[in-house]
Order: sequence, then structure tokens, then C-alpha cells
Amino acid sequence: MSTPWPPLRAELQGIEPYGAPQLDLPVQLNVNENPYGPSPEVVADIASAVAAAASTLNRYPDREFTELRAGLAAYLNTDGGNAITPEMVWAANGSNEVMLQLLQAFGGPDRTALSFAPTYSMYPEYARDSNTTWVVGHREDDFSLDLDHARDLIRQHRPHVVLLPSPNNPTGTALSPEVVGVLCEELGEGLLVVDEAYGEFRRSGTPSALELLPTHRNLIVSRTMSKAFALAGARLGYLAAAREICDAIRVVRLPYHLSAVTQATALAALRHAPELLGKVDELRLERDACVVWLREQGLQVAESDANFALFGTFEDRHAVWQGLVERGVLIRETGPDGWLRVSIGTADEMTAFKNALTEVMKEINR
Amino acid sequence: MSTPWPPLRAELQGIEPYGAPQLDLPVQLNVNENPYGPSPEVVADIASAVAAAASTLNRYPDREFTELRAGLAAYLNTDGGNAITPEMVWAANGSNEVMLQLLQAFGGPDRTALSFAPTYSMYPEYARDSNTTWVVGHREDDFSLDLDHARDLIRQHRPHVVLLPSPNNPTGTALSPEVVGVLCEELGEGLLVVDEAYGEFRRSGTPSALELLPTHRNLIVSRTMSKAFALAGARLGYLAAAREICDAIRVVRLPYHLSAVTQATALAALRHAPELLGKVDELRLERDACVVWLREQGLQVAESDANFALFGTFEDRHAVWQGLVERGVLIRETGPDGWLRVSIGTADEMTAFKNALTEVMKEINR
Repeated sequence: MSTPWPPLRAELQGIEPYGAPQLDLPVQLNVNENPYGPSPEVVADIASAVAAAASTLNRYPDREFTELRAGLAAYLNTDGGNAITPEMVWAANGSNEVMLQLLQAFGGPDRTALSFAPTYSMYPEYARDSNTTWVVGHREDDFSLDLDHARDLIRQHRPHVVLLPSPNNPTGTALSPEVVGVLCEELGEGLLVVDEAYGEFRRSGTPSALELLPTHRNLIVSRTMSKAFALAGARLGYLAAAREICDAIRVVRLPYHLSAVTQATALAALRHAPELLGKVDELRLERDACVVWLREQGLQVAESDANFALFGTFEDRHAVWQGLVERGVLIRETGPDGWLRVSIGTADEMTAFKNALTEVMKEINR
Repeated sequence: MSTPWPPLRAELQGIEPYGAPQLDLPVQLNVNENPYGPSPEVVADIASAVAAAASTLNRYPDREFTELRAGLAAYLNTDGGNAITPEMVWAANGSNEVMLQLLQAFGGPDRTALSFAPTYSMYPEYARDSNTTWVVGHREDDFSLDLDHARDLIRQHRPHVVLLPSPNNPTGTALSPEVVGVLCEELGEGLLVVDEAYGEFRRSGTPSALELLPTHRNLIVSRTMSKAFALAGARLGYLAAAREICDAIRVVRLPYHLSAVTQATALAALRHAPELLGKVDELRLERDACVVWLREQGLQVAESDANFALFGTFEDRHAVWQGLVERGVLIRETGPDGWLRVSIGTADEMTAFKNALTEVMKEINR
């Protein structure tokens, strides 16, 4: 038989499912997780919240996740948001699902989404899975956005959705409010999604795009509880935008997409925001120290407002990655050729990373 | 401005989000939930399983949900499955997401999905959201499938995916294994999805389509933990199929789509399968008694293998629905004109429904 089996769509055949290599090593600095697990108090609160929800698990969850939307809105108003109401918040199972819903609603066949590489490698997958045409521009050598180039591409392609992480993954580069404002103006009816998955790790002086929501109705700012709230395992992504945009997403959301257990878990974590965000401050310091240290080793390091650092360049980055793996340290081979990305871990994990990298760099004699 | 805002896709504009009306009434028999909440033992086990998972919630969940797939496979082999392995099982956040993933992988633009009405009202939404062409045939007066008509439509449209619930929602009608076999043969390379969301409620003598998996590689059988496992709030849908089909879905699944909390909750419920499924037997008896009683009232009732009954016909079904609402009983105004659907509740709830319906029928003098 020449017909391939099973009858996957042609553009999906032969494609490997997305996902970082999963190796069981002592020091895991590869997927930008928060190294600090929830404290016993947070664990206990999550368990009791889930127990309370569990007694009515035979019923469908609140389709509008009203309490969670209110909790997320209140939190955002403490971190750059200004009078964000629950109706201006939307959430789903991870930013992944938020982005897919956005492209299902506002992208899709005969529509175009735009981003600028190097950037988050899932973006083209969201476009593919929603049958949206994908256009990708480039970034400057320092990974910042070339505003003239961005404007040119917007005029040429009239994208319906622009996806821009700030800070950018895998480079750590933040967008300035001026750039966000200019792009919103240029887009007209198109939407700008500023993906602030790592927003809480931004350096002081770097504002959140949330501040611009009152002045740009085509601006969407997404966040996640995976990183700052150390809740990657719970899968809760969300966004803030004009209430009309949130309301429109409801047409394509699968009904009851957020389980009662997910809602209870996220609400419990929000109650512990001060504790969880205290760890973010530690990680920001650790990040800045890591950048300084890498530069002291004579390496280039991208300016980072995130919980990771992109560094290089290496003639054979795979050899460096492999050398670290052999020393029990897992980082990520991603970004432009020659660069590597390390997530910021605990002080001990960063020491292990630095020691291992020092050895590897001696060995490879770069 | 004549441009609509926000810039939703044209086919989505003006559409109301899917969802049954949510009214807070004492007797809820409208969305086919299991009326029995988890016992204190099940609640405690879910809470401790989630507490165990919560201590590492800063890490991403197992992308392949290995333990859950094994648990679901083992369960299916106790209810119609024959040597189903974990690699033959796939799961997502509700059957909703399972179906959307199937259409993203095997449907999509320039491809066609087929079903037969009256049937589950979300099917056309999955097709719309995946940009799959939607074709719908009809059912016989008793809501069974007309095999000649089905064959004609398959030959005419060569659908890539056929979605058929068994038992059908909202009619309760099961498919015979002979019909499933004939459709699989007729489809050739196309896939037949038998949606057994209500499969565990089937009457004795009604086999599951799981029995046919070994003989038809283009057969997919989906299930959910929402109904028999009384876990609607936890959102866990799944399917069994050839491992090549499960593997292909991984290309379109969003990475880490099943949270660690969802995996822990589902696994805990699976450990209590005997207790939870004991309630299914009670509900099957209650369902059969309800069908008998409705017929005694001179009503037509569709043959039901599900946890609901479709009955009628009424000249003004909305008046009947409204009359029940006024008596504290919420059922669903769905299905063909003149019919109403009642979910099977506890014995007390069914008594309340019968008393209310008796009053309403006297009042409307049908």
C-alpha cells in the first residue's frame, strides 16, 4: 500500500511531537521550571482545596471559572495591571491552550500570524494546528526587535495576530513599552499578543505590557502560573485583554475546559502569591549573578529579563551540552547556532552548572 | 466603523458559546451527570494523591502520562477491551479535547467529518474549530442508523472521520457490532470514532465497540471518566485505538496537556472503580424503571442504553420544560422538536421528576 497509515494530514506526517528531551539528571536546568517546589503550607492548602472540590466532582465545573478569573485579575493589578476586571481575564490549560484558542478565534484559514525569530518554538505549531498562515521575521544581532523591519512585515502581510514574547524565549529579551505601542498602532485591527510567560522575572525598570492595556484595545497580554508561581505541573495559562476579546474566545473554547481541580489548585496557589513571588526575587538575583559570571568567562550572554540565560557562542554547542550532561547538568540546546540556554536554578544548582561548564570549557579548549 | 470588533473569524461572529442553561434548581437532571458524588474514601484518596503530586508542581507533568495510560488500559480490559495496551490509549482534558485532537490530526481543511442527526451537539463545533467540512445524515424514526443511507453518504463524501456515539446523545440509541463492522469496512482508510461516553450504562446484551478493535484498524473507541466514574469536574476523556493512531495524535497535542493534578485525580478514581461502577448498576436499574414509567404515562420513549431518556412528544415542549423548572426540576430541552431529555438521578430525584411531570402533564392537558 502506498497510502500512509494512519491517514494523518500531509503536513503532519513524519513530524516529531514537540518536547524537550527528558533525561533524568541531578540538575535540571533545561525547561525554565522554577526550582522551588511548593512549601508544605502550599501543598496542604492545594490538597484541602482539591478535597473540597472533589466532593462534587460528579458535577461539571464552573464553565466561566468566575472565582479564578477574579483571583487572577486581582493578582495582575498588583503586577503592572491597572483596573483589570475579571471580565478582562481569560484562562486555559497552559498558555499553550490560550494561544491555540486565540488563533482559532482570530487566526485560522486565510489569516496570518507573525512573529520574529529566534523565538518560542511552539508558535509555529499553534499556527499549524489552527491552519493559520505563519510568517516569521528576524531579530537584531542582540535579539531586540528592529522596528522598521517589524513595520515593513506588518504592512506587507497585514497579520491578524502578532505573537511576541516579552521577555523573549529563548533569548530573555524584553520589549519596550514604546515598541509595543508602535506595533499596536501599526496593526490597526490586528491583535498584538505580548506573551509575558516570564514577565515576573523582568528586571526593575522593565515595565509590563499590562500598563498599556487601557490605551490599546488590540493588545493582549498573556501570563502563566507555570513559572513565577512554580506551577508548571498544574497547567494554568491566562491573559488580560479587552473584555470583548475574552468574550469572543468563549465561542471557540471547549465547554468546561478548566477542571474543578485545576480551578481549585490555581486559586490555592494565588492565596500564597507573596511566598511564591518571594522566590522570584531570589531567582532574579541568581539570574543576574549568572549573567555576570558567564561574561567573566569570556562568553556572550543575551540581556535577560527571564529566568534563563542564553549564552555562547560555541563552535560545537552540542559538545558543550553533552559535556554538561556527562556531569549531571541538563541545559537546553536551543536558539541560534552556537548558543545554549540555561534555566536559573537554586544557588546549589547554579554552582553545579558553573563548575561543570568550567570543566567542559577547559576540555573543549574553545 | 463597519469592521466588527473584535476581529473574530466571520463564521464565529454572533455565535453563542456552547453550554446548557445553568439554573440553580434542587433537582439537576439536565447534563447527564452522575448524581452520586465521590464517597469520603474516594475524596480522601484524591486529596492525598494530589498532595503527593503537588510537592513537585514546579516541574512539568509527565508528557506521556504513562501511569494513567496503563491504568485506563487495564480498566478497559475489564469492560469490553481485549488485550488493550497502554500504547493503544490516549487521553485529554475531556472527550471534547480528544475529539478536537482527532479532527486536527485526521480532519482539517479539505477534509470531511460525518455524523447522523439527531446526535451530540458539540460535533459540528469540533468540526468548525478544526476547519473540517461537516456533513450530517439523518437517523430513522426510532433514532437507529439506516445502514443504506450511511453507506450512501460514505460513498458520496468519502469522509476522513465518522463520529458516532453509542449510545447516542441525546437519544440513548446504541450501535450494533454489525453496523460498526460494516461502517469500518465501507470507510476504507477513513476512521470511525465510536463515542462511548455513556458506554458503561449499556444494557446487558449490548456489546461495546471495544470488542471490535482487534479486527478493525480504523476503529477508535472513546470513553470518558465524566459519567460512569462520576468525574465530570475532573475533565478526563480518553480513547482506545491502534497504537499508530495514538502515536499520530501526539503530533497535534499541546505538550504537557494533561496536568499532574489531573493525572493524579484520574488515577485515584481508577483505584476505586468497583465502588464507582457499583453506582452505575443502580443507575441502569433506575433508567429502565424510568423508561417503563414514562411509557405508562402514554409517552414515547427512545430505547436507552445511556444514563438518560429521551421522551415525548409534546406540542409545546418548552411549556413542559418550564413547568418542571417551576417545580424545581431541571431537564434538557434538546433533541428533535417535541422531545425532552431527562438525566437519570437518584431514586429521590426521579420521584421528584415523576411527580412534577405528572402535575405538568395534567396542567397542559396534552
